[in-house]
Amino acid sequence: MRAGAYRSGIVMADTKLQSCATNLKGVILDMCGVLYDSGAGDGVAIPGSVEAVRKLKASDLTLRFCTNETQASRKKFVAKLQRLGFDISVGEVFSPAPAAVAVLRERGLRPHLLVCDGVLPEFDGVETSDPNCVVIGDAAEKFSYANLNEAFRVLIGLEKPTLFSLGKGKYYKETDGLSLDVGVYMKALEYACDVEAEVIGKPSAAFFRSVLNDMALQPHEVMMIGDDLVNDIGGAQQCGMKGVQVRTGKYRPSDQSHPTVTADGTADDLARAVDVILSCRRRP
Amino acid sequence: MRAGAYRSGIVMADTKLQSCATNLKGVILDMCGVLYDSGAGDGVAIPGSVEAVRKLKASDLTLRFCTNETQASRKKFVAKLQRLGFDISVGEVFSPAPAAVAVLRERGLRPHLLVCDGVLPEFDGVETSDPNCVVIGDAAEKFSYANLNEAFRVLIGLEKPTLFSLGKGKYYKETDGLSLDVGVYMKALEYACDVEAEVIGKPSAAFFRSVLNDMALQPHEVMMIGDDLVNDIGGAQQCGMKGVQVRTGKYRPSDQSHPTVTADGTADDLARAVDVILSCRRRP
Repeated sequence: MRAGAYRSGIVMADTKLQSCATNLKGVILDMCGVLYDSGAGDGVAIPGSVEAVRKLKASDLTLRFCTNETQASRKKFVAKLQRLGFDISVGEVFSPAPAAVAVLRERGLRPHLLVCDGVLPEFDGVETSDPNCVVIGDAAEKFSYANLNEAFRVLIGLEKPTLFSLGKGKYYKETDGLSLDVGVYMKALEYACDVEAEVIGKPSAAFFRSVLNDMALQPHEVMMIGDDLVNDIGGAQQCGMKGVQVRTGKYRPSDQSHPTVTADGTADDLARAVDVILSCRRRP
Repeated sequence: MRAGAYRSGIVMADTKLQSCATNLKGVILDMCGVLYDSGAGDGVAIPGSVEAVRKLKASDLTLRFCTNETQASRKKFVAKLQRLGFDISVGEVFSPAPAAVAVLRERGLRPHLLVCDGVLPEFDGVETSDPNCVVIGDAAEKFSYANLNEAFRVLIGLEKPTLFSLGKGKYYKETDGLSLDVGVYMKALEYACDVEAEVIGKPSAAFFRSVLNDMALQPHEVMMIGDDLVNDIGGAQQCGMKGVQVRTGKYRPSDQSHPTVTADGTADDLARAVDVILSCRRRP
């Protein structure tokens, strides 16, 4: 690509992003792949993202974080982000496990849980004996054949198999490469049992609405920034929000020609997105 | 159900089966769930099935066995059946792994194999370095998160991800309960990589045609007997054969109201099916 064409591409991207920032009152940030890449230990912060969060907090925008992270409790997860340098607190973070607990209580369901040990504290006090539904999260290494088969046997033994999936992502990026996410195992159990899972977390509209409710903002006043075109951008757009994709995390060039979802704006990373959004807000 | 209604149900089932046996020249038998139930050790022969195979062999019908078994090489698999008492030889058994090897050679493909160790001898001599496709079989315990992720990374790294699945069964019956089959993991990888797998084995028409070719019979002259409504019965019917379901193995009462596949005949087990088929052939 000629340097001129490249520069003109950047200008066009910035212009689209600026138009998304019109009348903006709040921003929801995806976390993994936007703030940091997961991997060994705490993973690594994506360059510029710690400072970008600091700038957003110093602005007049309302900020929330929305993740499909289900490997740890919110408390431990937020502690990790704090160690990576982020100014963030538990109350600002929305994740699927607490939302699932609310649904289970509301419907009087007793789950068989196939989730990471780290997220089990979120389910403290939930009755799990004689299960009448299955909840799967990003169980990673716990997605052994034996464990998946156990969940399958519970489901297939129910008169009306009920499966909840904490998100439906295909994969995420770790420091050593891409890793399969919970959605892949959701599809496996859906096929095995001829059922359709109820997804809790992004891109579920109910999940996004609970975040908007907490922000006390209308959808058109809020922008979602994420790396997952379908679950972050597509999900937010379905709710009436603007969706901006960053080219970090699980972003792939083929996202730009996705058959059903087109981002309202794009940026190389969160730092760039925040600079463009805030710069255009400071204009007269 | 009243005893009279039950008896009349049996008579109706037998009549349908007899009409399937008209002009019959050959029979293809599914193996797991029809001849035996898998499980600890060699599993157990289903009562009456050893004798049923003996009767078929003593008749004028051409007999073949067709399995999606991919946990062992045909040689070891047949030896197990022989230990269970069956009169059976390797040349009579059609299974997906040798069919896959033929496809790989024809298309010059180098597979990443996610299969049971037991079936690896079938792939002896197949080049597996620098893989440009993935082959999955019923890997059972080898379907760990790490192994599935490794297969995923190979696929997603290919310009045109090519996935072969040795069968697409949902589950099979072991002596201690139902167990997930390869199709479930096929769906998982299909979703992860946005690809459609090429299925080798039942219900693939190419696979059934290779059996018919070996029998030197036309589809309408042959009956397939199996416990899997979709893969055995539906697959055979798609090829123009009659499909008869036995109520052993993975049979479930809901099969009788399946939205797309209706068996041409049913029987309690293989012994009953064979008795009805042979008795009507002996009639004048």
